[in-house]
Amino acid sequence: MSGADEPEVAEDARIARLRARFDRSPRDPAVALAIGDDAALAHGLALSVDVAVEDVHFRRSFAPLAALAERAANAALSDLAAMGATPTGLLLALLVPRDEPPASFDALAEGVAKAAEAAGAAVLGGNLSRGHALSLTTTVLGRAPESPLRRDGARPGDGIWVTGAPGDAALGLARLMAGEREGPFIARWLHPRPRLGAGRALLGHASAAMDLSDGLLLDLGRMTGASGVGATIRLADIPRGPGFAAAAGADARALLLGGGESYELLFTARGDVPSPLEATRIGTIDAAPGLRVDAGAGPDPVVPAGHDHFSAFPPAAPSARPKAERE
Amino acid sequence: MSGADEPEVAEDARIARLRARFDRSPRDPAVALAIGDDAALAHGLALSVDVAVEDVHFRRSFAPLAALAERAANAALSDLAAMGATPTGLLLALLVPRDEPPASFDALAEGVAKAAEAAGAAVLGGNLSRGHALSLTTTVLGRAPESPLRRDGARPGDGIWVTGAPGDAALGLARLMAGEREGPFIARWLHPRPRLGAGRALLGHASAAMDLSDGLLLDLGRMTGASGVGATIRLADIPRGPGFAAAAGADARALLLGGGESYELLFTARGDVPSPLEATRIGTIDAAPGLRVDAGAGPDPVVPAGHDHFSAFPPAAPSARPKAERE
Repeated sequence: MSGADEPEVAEDARIARLRARFDRSPRDPAVALAIGDDAALAHGLALSVDVAVEDVHFRRSFAPLAALAERAANAALSDLAAMGATPTGLLLALLVPRDEPPASFDALAEGVAKAAEAAGAAVLGGNLSRGHALSLTTTVLGRAPESPLRRDGARPGDGIWVTGAPGDAALGLARLMAGEREGPFIARWLHPRPRLGAGRALLGHASAAMDLSDGLLLDLGRMTGASGVGATIRLADIPRGPGFAAAAGADARALLLGGGESYELLFTARGDVPSPLEATRIGTIDAAPGLRVDAGAGPDPVVPAGHDHFSAFPPAAPSARPKAERE
Repeated sequence: MSGADEPEVAEDARIARLRARFDRSPRDPAVALAIGDDAALAHGLALSVDVAVEDVHFRRSFAPLAALAERAANAALSDLAAMGATPTGLLLALLVPRDEPPASFDALAEGVAKAAEAAGAAVLGGNLSRGHALSLTTTVLGRAPESPLRRDGARPGDGIWVTGAPGDAALGLARLMAGEREGPFIARWLHPRPRLGAGRALLGHASAAMDLSDGLLLDLGRMTGASGVGATIRLADIPRGPGFAAAAGADARALLLGGGESYELLFTARGDVPSPLEATRIGTIDAAPGLRVDAGAGPDPVVPAGHDHFSAFPPAAPSARPKAERE
């Protein structure tokens, strides 16, 4: 659950109301970090929960159920990557419509188990209940490193880096919404890989890190807000997958800066980063608060586009809003 | 997630399909117990997840949102009581309809925080997303004792015991469904208390234990199935709250044997149980498989009434089916 010092988006006030109450509760000494980062830290573990709801976060028509379930579990596991943690288990709460056919359960189990196994985690428990639509709520846990990656350590002068090409998944979602079902960008949306190895490789190197779930600017604003700094990024330096410019057309800037659900890592580092890491420097942390984008004519202040998790899922039309609906 | 060797109810086949796949995954050595009991055991912790969905597990008209949220969190915490564990934290995944008013978030947070604080747990994290209806998915964790209470330890000759009066909550739900909003039985449904102290007091005394969520016979059948034994219970010995017989009328037997959601503990013990514990002996574990109920004329074999979590929530009518819709 993210905090009140984030860029203003429609549901932030709701999260702030919840968090204000929860932060007043006493905590067991085993709790090292509660709400506010990608995962909580307690008992030497990193713990996080993530949700995927039919017609809010995905449509069944996008892909086979097993792939959608694998994606949901991988999205949850990504929060452990963002802390540099090593997954060991997950708990799955499934809501399914009353008339869901038995074969769906095989597909859901296969997808979740595949993601868990790839991450080294086991499905430890779960809950099955009737719901108004299919939803997968995945709680993940893993061993926390001694000094986990956190959002609040970015300092002026640090480089800003990303793994992968963070706009590609959003372009894939836009294609899915437009009715396409295959292609390299759709594969990027459908098959995110939690960057577990990268997260561990960044321990001791990154000053701050988080995963990119809601869009580069919005997530960067959360990191700079938590760290009490600002940032300037260079639009041209954001990596794009092959064919991105042609496929994205006029939406390129919006997809690169606002497109979510890539589950790549965003991190900051004082110097160079470990050489085997496929990461790209896209900007620099500033002392001055706020976010700036340099599109070629110098730094230009920006306000992250509001990412309203309570807005309707966009209609399946060519004009689809590419941004994902993820919390 | 409960297992395949349980009494036959409509969704058991679905759970078995999920579990069959999950049980094939490799497990980290830190995982001591995965699917099949009230909670998983890993990293010295007990972990469980529970779900409460609007119009499946509760109606908003039943009570203020804060009370419904407190109840949802307490139901989840009950799984830790059933293992003799000591709660330290919970993660809350909230789905809320798009137009949910801001005040609802205060109420939801207050209810969950109240339950967490009463149990000594802190809200460690969460997820907020739009859903088709209000739902609360609560993952709970706590310190596991050295030898946690489990379902599979019941042996022939052990006494069968319950805390509290396990039919009272189901009677309360029936009253709620019939349009009533106040009364002692409704209070029992609305304000379950996870039996955390009782669970800890039973460590070293109980041979098996679980919480009563789906009904006495169904849950007892799960325990005897896991333990490879049978059981006989005496109907007259099942405790009833004051006024139960008059209020329940002809439904008494069904409520006592099949009524769910009391979150009392069901346990077995070889000899006496710790004296401060408010528990009542209701029967005896047998070597012969199957369940028998002695209603005064000797043991009579019974098959637990099917508890179909996928059936429709009953209409708010006097003929309402009292049984809860909980997994």
